[in-house]
Amino acid sequence: MATLRVLGVDPGLTRCGVGVVDVAADRSAVLVHVGVVRTASDAPIEQRLVDVARGLREVMEVHAPDVVAVERVFAQQNRNTVMGTAQASGIALMLAGERGLPTATHTPTEVKAAITGYGAADKRQVQTMVARVLRLRELPQPADAADALALALCHAWRAPAARSETSGVLTPAQRAWREAERRMRV
Amino acid sequence: MATLRVLGVDPGLTRCGVGVVDVAADRSAVLVHVGVVRTASDAPIEQRLVDVARGLREVMEVHAPDVVAVERVFAQQNRNTVMGTAQASGIALMLAGERGLPTATHTPTEVKAAITGYGAADKRQVQTMVARVLRLRELPQPADAADALALALCHAWRAPAARSETSGVLTPAQRAWREAERRMRV
Repeated sequence: MATLRVLGVDPGLTRCGVGVVDVAADRSAVLVHVGVVRTASDAPIEQRLVDVARGLREVMEVHAPDVVAVERVFAQQNRNTVMGTAQASGIALMLAGERGLPTATHTPTEVKAAITGYGAADKRQVQTMVARVLRLRELPQPADAADALALALCHAWRAPAARSETSGVLTPAQRAWREAERRMRV
Repeated sequence: MATLRVLGVDPGLTRCGVGVVDVAADRSAVLVHVGVVRTASDAPIEQRLVDVARGLREVMEVHAPDVVAVERVFAQQNRNTVMGTAQASGIALMLAGERGLPTATHTPTEVKAAITGYGAADKRQVQTMVARVLRLRELPQPADAADALALALCHAWRAPAARSETSGVLTPAQRAWREAERRMRV
């Protein structure tokens, strides 16, 4: 059965969560990789961003995802860290683009709703569902890693429903799924 | 006379201003390069960020700056574009880091104050001073390009004053200037 390999990225400068899952058309999913790219908070910003890029590049090279899903960052969020988060997300998207991989962004609410059916679910509920779906014996740790897996699952699960032909305009997620499907058929 | 070559980047997704100047110890400055990296607003975000990276990389390769100064982005700014601006700034900083170049960020107010002596100066005043300093016959256009040149000049001019030994802690600009100087001495 054809599967879609999704890399989920929970962007951050101090900790950047990465999760890779293979998702089948019947929505069943298998864990491929989970981890956190960390950078030293006392290093210069340009070095921290280089370290984030290196970590993400390595995951993309080793695990060769079909699509990259990145959590959408809002300016309204925590002001102290939002710029670093946005910078890390830009690097994740750019690295995907350099590899010709489609990307999509999803909001935390979309992720929670896709995973638990409830957009205001707490972190524990999300982690519990991620562990159940991936048949993990323990909850994925740390939270950034769990969020990255949830994002990857969210992306794969949301995309097929979005393929309906009722709307002429495709969301980034729809485009990403289509392009990944197209590639798999080749 | 030893000069410091500064690349100024006014980050943006639609238009990313780049300006390169050579600044001597007596503060006199020469224009090396000015331009704008543009991306198509209807292209996918990952492609736009790849295009920004390609344009910035080319400027760094061709003009080999000693230091890269990037305008500091605030979460409070225009919400529609601030995330793209932050993403572009992250890419500029990361590309500098990959080349081992020191970086610094300056706020628009710092730039205006350094160039015109007045932190609330309007764009036209800044452009006029930039043109005068660089002995250009016309005002640098478009505004993003002028801002990038102003940023580069600001960086070079602020750094030497900051070299006073009265403060034990170096700002990023101070560190950048010292490192560039150290490299020039080698």
